[in-house]
Parts: sequence; C-alpha cells; structure tokens
Amino acid sequence: MISDKMRVLVNSSSAIRAMFEEGKRLAAIYGAENVYDFSLGNPSVEPPAEIKDAIIDILQEEDPGMIHGYMNNSGYEDVRQNIALSLNKRFGTVFGAENIVMTVGAAGGLNVILKCILNPGDEVITFAPYFGEYRNYVSNFDGVLVTVKPNTKDFQPNLDEFEKNITGKTKAVIINSPNNPTGVVYSEETIIKLAEILERKQKELGTVIYLISDEPYRELVYDGVEVPYLTKYYKNTVVGYSFSKSLSLPGERIGYLVIPGEADGFGDLISAANVATRILGFVNAPSLIQRAVARCLDARVDIGIYNRNRELMYNSLLSYGYECVKPQGAFYLFVKALEDDDRKFVEAAKKHNILIVPGSSFGCPGYFRIAYCVDYSVIERSLPGFKKLAEEYLK
Amino acid sequence: MISDKMRVLVNSSSAIRAMFEEGKRLAAIYGAENVYDFSLGNPSVEPPAEIKDAIIDILQEEDPGMIHGYMNNSGYEDVRQNIALSLNKRFGTVFGAENIVMTVGAAGGLNVILKCILNPGDEVITFAPYFGEYRNYVSNFDGVLVTVKPNTKDFQPNLDEFEKNITGKTKAVIINSPNNPTGVVYSEETIIKLAEILERKQKELGTVIYLISDEPYRELVYDGVEVPYLTKYYKNTVVGYSFSKSLSLPGERIGYLVIPGEADGFGDLISAANVATRILGFVNAPSLIQRAVARCLDARVDIGIYNRNRELMYNSLLSYGYECVKPQGAFYLFVKALEDDDRKFVEAAKKHNILIVPGSSFGCPGYFRIAYCVDYSVIERSLPGFKKLAEEYLK
Repeated sequence: MISDKMRVLVNSSSAIRAMFEEGKRLAAIYGAENVYDFSLGNPSVEPPAEIKDAIIDILQEEDPGMIHGYMNNSGYEDVRQNIALSLNKRFGTVFGAENIVMTVGAAGGLNVILKCILNPGDEVITFAPYFGEYRNYVSNFDGVLVTVKPNTKDFQPNLDEFEKNITGKTKAVIINSPNNPTGVVYSEETIIKLAEILERKQKELGTVIYLISDEPYRELVYDGVEVPYLTKYYKNTVVGYSFSKSLSLPGERIGYLVIPGEADGFGDLISAANVATRILGFVNAPSLIQRAVARCLDARVDIGIYNRNRELMYNSLLSYGYECVKPQGAFYLFVKALEDDDRKFVEAAKKHNILIVPGSSFGCPGYFRIAYCVDYSVIERSLPGFKKLAEEYLK
Repeated sequence: MISDKMRVLVNSSSAIRAMFEEGKRLAAIYGAENVYDFSLGNPSVEPPAEIKDAIIDILQEEDPGMIHGYMNNSGYEDVRQNIALSLNKRFGTVFGAENIVMTVGAAGGLNVILKCILNPGDEVITFAPYFGEYRNYVSNFDGVLVTVKPNTKDFQPNLDEFEKNITGKTKAVIINSPNNPTGVVYSEETIIKLAEILERKQKELGTVIYLISDEPYRELVYDGVEVPYLTKYYKNTVVGYSFSKSLSLPGERIGYLVIPGEADGFGDLISAANVATRILGFVNAPSLIQRAVARCLDARVDIGIYNRNRELMYNSLLSYGYECVKPQGAFYLFVKALEDDDRKFVEAAKKHNILIVPGSSFGCPGYFRIAYCVDYSVIERSLPGFKKLAEEYLK
C-alpha cells in the first residue's frame, strides 16, 4: 500500500522507534528518574521570556487578518526586512528582505533549496559525521548524497578527500557548523580552504556549486568562539537557519533561507524558492510565529545552562577514560566508543540505563553521540553508569 | 542553476505574478478602492475570538517546553485525541488519536499522503475543475495526474468518464467538496456511486485505490446542506482537513489527515505518514497553534458574512445575464465566461478593474472563478463593472 521508497524508510524508522520503546520499557522497570536519555536533540532550556511577551503583544496590537492570514510564500516583507537588518548588523553583510525566504524550520528550508536545484542524479556532498536526514532530503528530489570520510582527529572536514569527490554532477555541498553530532565549529581557516576548493572546482568544471550552510546551532557556542558567516567567504552560499535552538522553539517550525544577491542565478533561485515553498505544501512559514521571532532577534536562550552540562559531562567522561574532542558548540558530545562496534557499545550502555545514539547513524562508526540538552541532575545521576561502563572495557 | 522541473514551474508562476503586478498597476492608476480583486481565496472574515483567547490561555497556563517543543511527528497525542472525539461526535465515526496525523495545512497533508503511497508513474485521478496545485503535489512524487472532464451541468463529478479512467496504475483519487473553484458540494448520491465504482474497480483490478478527500472548505456551507463524511462510505478514504477557512487561519498552516483504522494497510500508512512528515521537512505541524485549535474545535468564523456576499454576487450576476451553478459551499462562484476563450474574457474584465481567474487554471476552459471572500463593499462597487462587461457581450 505504501511506496517502495517509503517501505525502506518505514523499516529503518522502526529501529529508532524500537529504541524509544526500549527507553519506555526501562523507565517502567527502573523508574523514569533512573533512565538517562541522551538520545534526543530536544532543547531543555526554556524559551526566553521575550517570546511569550511578543506573542501576546502581537495578538493585542496587530490586525488578526494580518497575524493569521496568507502572505507571500517567502514570508512577511517586514519580518524578512528585520532579519536582513539584524544579519547585516551582526555580520557586516548587505542583505535586504529580497534575500530572505522564511521557512518551516531548517528542515523545511533545506528541502526547499534542494527542490530548487536538484535534477535526478545530481550529487550533493556532505562531511561525515553528518545529520542523517540529509540523506532523506537529497533523496526526496532523486539526488545522490556523497559523503566524505570523517577526520576523527578534530572533526574538521576532510578537505583533501572532499576535493576528490567533486565531479561535474556536484550541485551542492551541505555543511553544518556547529556540527550535529560532534559539536565542533568549523574554523575560519577551514572555511577559507573550503571556499578556495569550491571556487577552483567551479572554474575547472564550468559548473555552479552551492554551499548550503545548515545553521540551527549558530547561536549555541561556548568559550567565545566565532562561527564564520559563510556568504562572506563564498558567494554561492545558501544559509539555512532555524530558531529551534536559539529560542528553544523546535515545535514551532520557524527558520529562514538566506540567498545572497551575488549568488549565481539569484533571481531564479528566489523565484524557485517561492514556488518550492508553495508546492511542497509548506505554502508559507507559520504566520504568528514569524511575527514573534522578528520581535526577538536579539533574544537567546540561557547558553550558560548548556555550557554547565557540557563541562560536567566532558570532564567526567575524560576522567573515566573516554576520548572526545571538546566541542565548542551545539549540545552534543561525540565520544569514541570503547569497542569498535558502536552499536554493540550502545547496547552495553543500555544495561546502565543510558540511552545514546551510535555514530553509525551519522556515517561515523566507532563513536557515539550524547545529547546533553537535559537537566543537569540527569547528567549527575548518569555519571556512575558511564564510569562503570568504562571500567568494564578499560579494566 | 535551478532544476529543469523548477524552470517550468517558475516560468508559469511568472504569469500569476504578472496578474498580481497588473492588479498593483491598476490600483496605482485608479486607486486601490476602485480595483476589484476576486482572484485570491484569502479568508476575509476574522478568526473567531476564541482563537486569540486560547493562545493567550495556553501561554499563561501550559509549560513553555511543552508548548513550543518537539512532539511526535504526527502531533500532540492530546490534540489528536480531541480532534478524533470531535469528529466522532459530529459524524458518528470511531476514530482515536491513532487515526489523526497533524499536518502543515491541507497542502502539507496532501503532500504527506502522496509521498506515502506514490511510486513513480502511479496515477492519481481528479475531477475537473480542480485546484491546480494537485498537479504539482502529484508531480512532486513523480506521479501522473489524470483529470476527468468536467460535468458543466451541475459540476458534480463525471462518474462514467471517471470509471473509464481507472487503471491498474490508479493509486488514488482526489476529490474536493465543497469544491474550489465551483463551490459545489458533492451530493450523498454522488459519493455512494463514487464509492461503488471504487469498490468494484479495486476488486476487478486487485488493487487498493485510496480516496483522498481534500476538505479545507468543509465548514463553509450554506442553506443547511450536509457534506457527507467520506470514511463512512468508503473505507480506503484519507481525509485532508485544514483550519485555514473554518477558523480563518490560512497563514498558520494547521490541519490534519484522518486515516481510518479499517483502511487497507492502515499500520503502514500511519508509519509512513510519520516518516513523510519528518523527511519532507515539516517535522511536525506548528506546535502552539496545534494546541490552540484543539481548544477551538467547535468555533467557526461567521459564515453569514460569506453567505451575504454569495447572495449579492450570485443574484446580481444572474440579473446581468451571466450563467452560474449556485454554489452551496466555499467562497467561490464559477461562472460561464461570455466568450469561449476564458483568458480573453479575464482580460476584458480587467478593463473594468475586475480581477478574476480563468477556468483554464482549473482545467475547465470557458469559465471564470470569482473568490467572493472580500468586503461586501468591494462586491457592491464592482457590480456596475460586471454589468457593463455583460452588456458588451450580450447587447
């Protein structure tokens, strides 16, 4: 009854659901407070108070037909203008409303831009470890995801390997910094080299290669690290942003694409992004929340809470003998599994009521991901389990 | 730079944009109040007051992590349960939360269900005149839209022709009642016959054919007419609902799919709908507004306002010599053009500052659509123009 492609996806999603069910089963036996679920990237920090205030103010002040009505497929003009100005102030860019397309989160935005550019068989390159959904998004438009092997030294992208993977069919490259699952921020040095390679290959192949920067974690950075704004390094950059993490609004599905005026085919891309937003069934990003985030562009969740989690988890794991690159962003740790088979290691962790995700799910076997966006107390209570788990392997 | 499919769509969307621009041009010359734009199905009646109250109450009462957080891809369990109970009360159905998948409007819902079921080359049948986006939604998944010629007598579907179009590749049928663009409500007699044909053909061909009922206009009906609830007539029905018109929330992108437990492949369909919601980039229907509509399931916009518009427009046009089936639902009139070439007729109307949509856009040349979801005064001021236009042709 369901399509062949869907059959495969439903079967693999059953595995994820099985993990969920396992968590529930453990909670039923040991009590929910004794099961430590680090499997989900669901923000644990409350949205800033500004969001609630903004929504109520909008409902009191603005015309209901305007708040809840249709607008351009790309979103409200004034919202897009405010976002452009905010970006310009922060990053020294020169965007206007015409460069912004409001989207149903970053996931919606990535689907829109891929719908715009991909012909069947076109290739999209990404760097392992990578967010597993990229494979599905590219497949939605019959593209082919090409993955570059991980550089496990520091999880900066493997650029030599990257260059070898660029062909005449390469239509786009997706990068994600701060990265899910590693939390690593790609350095300016990395970005400059990446841009050089892309420029050179575009010339050599006579093609246009878009760099899609998936940035839901842009605002979640620690230690004062800077996340380069990619349109300044490579003109064919398309930014996919989301407010899911910066404002803890993942359920609201609100984000935007930035398409710079100097990008090749800018006019076509913008027209196509409008059409794609419409025909993929988004029609437009949800209206009230568009208006709300536009009033909260300087608001942020309390990053200090995530940072405290990061420090406790990272330092504890290291003291138990785990190996991990210390991440400067997002809310993930990507830790070396204590045996080669990361799936088996994840099973071993379950015996200590610890739920984590195998690196294989991100194209990087031999590692596991911890989503530390949980209550501090959950981390505290989980630590003896992590310690015992290490002792089993390292004794 | 953009894909081949997108190139075609961008070019055809330029025609629509040109009409928009023409409207703006006319408004600049004659004043906005002297241009009569009947081209857009954008609800003109305010959302009921319950919506504003519900949103504010939710923000004051509920946990922010819950209001704005991730939930199952299919939506909040309690929201889906409330919707199921409301349907059961109204239509005598026996749905539970497990039958409901919250969607990003009806457009999102249609894309989700088509993604679930279509293999490349599968056929989807619809009845002209039909909402033009169906073609794009089906094409998104490499399906083929097969259209049944219109029955211009009363705009009930042409069932003899329909039966002849069903083949072994027919995977689904989309119907839309109350209909855009005709406003016609498909009668119970029609639905019974349609179901009989589908049952017979399923048996004959040994296939499953889903009936997708696109129902954004369900609550917009006049003269006490009943809109049959299709799952009661044909078990392989999937309902795509939207709150866009019943609550005047088109910008919020909120609706749901109903997949009955007795539908063939129910379990697979539900699993697939969850996966499709995720990978198409919706992830979930927007969260706050999910919670809001669940508190307003009995609320409605003031249909009397649309009815008053309908009566004035319909009666006036008839008195000028136009021919039109009196619609019992939605907020459209589908009127016979006064010359064979409906596109030329639409151009002629523009000379009276009247903006309408040619029937060709809905697969039914020789007609035009009036969206009467505008201020009553706009209709009043437009009538002399409609009269003169008729006189040009009928003198």
